[in-house]
Amino acid sequence: MSEGGLEKCELCDSPGGEVIWENAICRVVLVADADYPGFCRVILNRHLREMTDLPHKERMQLMTVVFAVESAVRRLYQPDKVNLASLGNMTPHVHWHLIPRWRDDRQFPQPIWAATQRASAATPRQLVEGRQLGDQIIAALRIT
Amino acid sequence: MSEGGLEKCELCDSPGGEVIWENAICRVVLVADADYPGFCRVILNRHLREMTDLPHKERMQLMTVVFAVESAVRRLYQPDKVNLASLGNMTPHVHWHLIPRWRDDRQFPQPIWAATQRASAATPRQLVEGRQLGDQIIAALRIT
Repeated sequence: MSEGGLEKCELCDSPGGEVIWENAICRVVLVADADYPGFCRVILNRHLREMTDLPHKERMQLMTVVFAVESAVRRLYQPDKVNLASLGNMTPHVHWHLIPRWRDDRQFPQPIWAATQRASAATPRQLVEGRQLGDQIIAALRIT
Repeated sequence: MSEGGLEKCELCDSPGGEVIWENAICRVVLVADADYPGFCRVILNRHLREMTDLPHKERMQLMTVVFAVESAVRRLYQPDKVNLASLGNMTPHVHWHLIPRWRDDRQFPQPIWAATQRASAATPRQLVEGRQLGDQIIAALRIT
């Protein structure tokens, strides 16, 4: 349930995926998507709609986590590109999508929300456990 | 031309739109899209591919501008939602899309890259000049 609101919010009511790292402000979940291994979401714990609804300090603390996840994903999965997005049209509770992209993935070079460009890549991507990714996030936060 | 690279980069070779605000690190351009008035891009001046290719300080300075633009756009256009995205699959030069969204816009609640959901809104959106938006960005940066 959103703070003080009557509408149900799935990111208030559930973790939103396999939690691989968390702190007081946010949690990082691994999205189960065979086409995009390493796809993570960084979800704000409290229910706010926009990044600019957050106080400056907390906003930057959240971005520090987003970029630590980007570093961890780049290190472990070595994607051709990383896509970052905070949309929330359907679930207006601040959360960041962090999507590793490959030149032969289903939608490249389109965003993953666009029409499919091709079948899944013939060569399966490297699979990494959530725990390994969590360890890399901790390592990336240490050197921030 | 990208720094030290042989490939042409349109965000190195051109401003990428009507520049409404700039500093040493980046520029803000207004995107001419009748469906999404207030659609801006925040473009890094130097040619880097990912946010984590930037040093921490510069990364946070760039995000401070992104959020100042979000504040300015919210104040002037009062959208139902703001979408933020750094993709760069086609133009791998760091730039942020900042897209004001309305419940009756062409793609809502889908991302703007997804299939069209309906015709353009019957009521035209408020139009704001680039100069007004630039002034609001300056005001938002003052209180950051």
